[in-house]
Amino acid sequence: MTYCVAMRLRAGLLFASDSRTNAGVDHIATFRKMSIFETPGERLITLLNAGNLATTQSVLSLLRQRLHQDGPHLLNVPSMYQAAELLGRTLREVVERDAGSGTLSQGVDFGANFLVGGQIRGEPPRLFHVYPQGNFIEATEDTPYFQIGESKYGKPIIDRVIDFDSSLTEATKCTLISFDSTIRSNLSVGLPLDLLLYRTDSLAPAQPHRVDGDDPYFNRLRRGWGEGLRRVFARLPDEDWFR
Amino acid sequence: MTYCVAMRLRAGLLFASDSRTNAGVDHIATFRKMSIFETPGERLITLLNAGNLATTQSVLSLLRQRLHQDGPHLLNVPSMYQAAELLGRTLREVVERDAGSGTLSQGVDFGANFLVGGQIRGEPPRLFHVYPQGNFIEATEDTPYFQIGESKYGKPIIDRVIDFDSSLTEATKCTLISFDSTIRSNLSVGLPLDLLLYRTDSLAPAQPHRVDGDDPYFNRLRRGWGEGLRRVFARLPDEDWFR
Repeated sequence: MTYCVAMRLRAGLLFASDSRTNAGVDHIATFRKMSIFETPGERLITLLNAGNLATTQSVLSLLRQRLHQDGPHLLNVPSMYQAAELLGRTLREVVERDAGSGTLSQGVDFGANFLVGGQIRGEPPRLFHVYPQGNFIEATEDTPYFQIGESKYGKPIIDRVIDFDSSLTEATKCTLISFDSTIRSNLSVGLPLDLLLYRTDSLAPAQPHRVDGDDPYFNRLRRGWGEGLRRVFARLPDEDWFR
Repeated sequence: MTYCVAMRLRAGLLFASDSRTNAGVDHIATFRKMSIFETPGERLITLLNAGNLATTQSVLSLLRQRLHQDGPHLLNVPSMYQAAELLGRTLREVVERDAGSGTLSQGVDFGANFLVGGQIRGEPPRLFHVYPQGNFIEATEDTPYFQIGESKYGKPIIDRVIDFDSSLTEATKCTLISFDSTIRSNLSVGLPLDLLLYRTDSLAPAQPHRVDGDDPYFNRLRRGWGEGLRRVFARLPDEDWFR
């Protein structure tokens, strides 16, 4: 499985993904789930993926290969909307190719979910969730974040602390806590994490961070959050249910 | 959907369930998911159910009907193991009857999960998770709790604070917080909650509690937990990711 989060805040964009891929518990591997397409000063587009690894790798290979061909590609589409549309079309193309005949598919789920966000000069930053069917929705001020993969364990903390006006620093802190909760409760999500922050209108070169188990900040957060939760829990009132 | 939790601790047993049932978002109803079978002084058996409502209601109707017939039933089986076995057999009987022909089933999932726990005099308290297939597993000191239904949102807090030596008071506090997190993040889980606590070896009559949105203790917990989390979050260190 996988866990990815992306947020579109007033201050900018956040992308985070784990790196564990598994087909059963005895076939676990590490794959990067974050892909960056950029022309500094003009556009930055980031993709996060979850789902069938053959499908997501093929989609990314085709998107990269087509950067050098005529026709629309991620470095020439004029808007993020068209980037999401192109991604959706490519996803459908791969799934139709691989699942197409049906006779060999034997119940395999060829589907994949993508988060695609970024900024192209002339537009504000935008963020989309592309579904396995190739259609997509866009993040808004009311719903400023999307998750794909094992999203449930880490959702409550985001729901409690994040809104459109959160800072990128707060959003990162919250995202790392959300990953910590997920990793503790679900073996199929694992370190290292890939993290990318983008400041609105900067159009600066991407500086992705890799956060592993030795990362001192991540470890301070994990410890502080775990201790803080237990402290809050211990101080909450008790009730005598047998009275 | 549904969310149910049961715990088997040194101090006793805890059972909790929400009461929302839905078939799509436009068909929402309230159904109790906790059933109690007891002979005070001799046995207390509690069932929690999640899954197809027709299946769970039929299983419970058959279990109740058979209390007045010859043969094994929940008030005469000599052990909790046999109670779990009887439940599993009844579940298989209902699913085979309803899904049996196949021609009418049209992709409906007839499955259901049950948690069944309690104490029969002469045995310690025991707790089982009965799967849709009718087989079952038992809680141990290492894994003292089971969840069924929408379990993921509320799992991290239980993983962090509960072990076999937790008190029933702590376990109840943690369970109510786990329900609060689930209800906030998932519309298909809703109040009121049913809560039953049982002290090891008491064999006392069951005193179930119903916790609704007006419950003063639940509201103090929700408020205290939400404020406490935001306070812990705000005090955690910030990192400058753009340095």
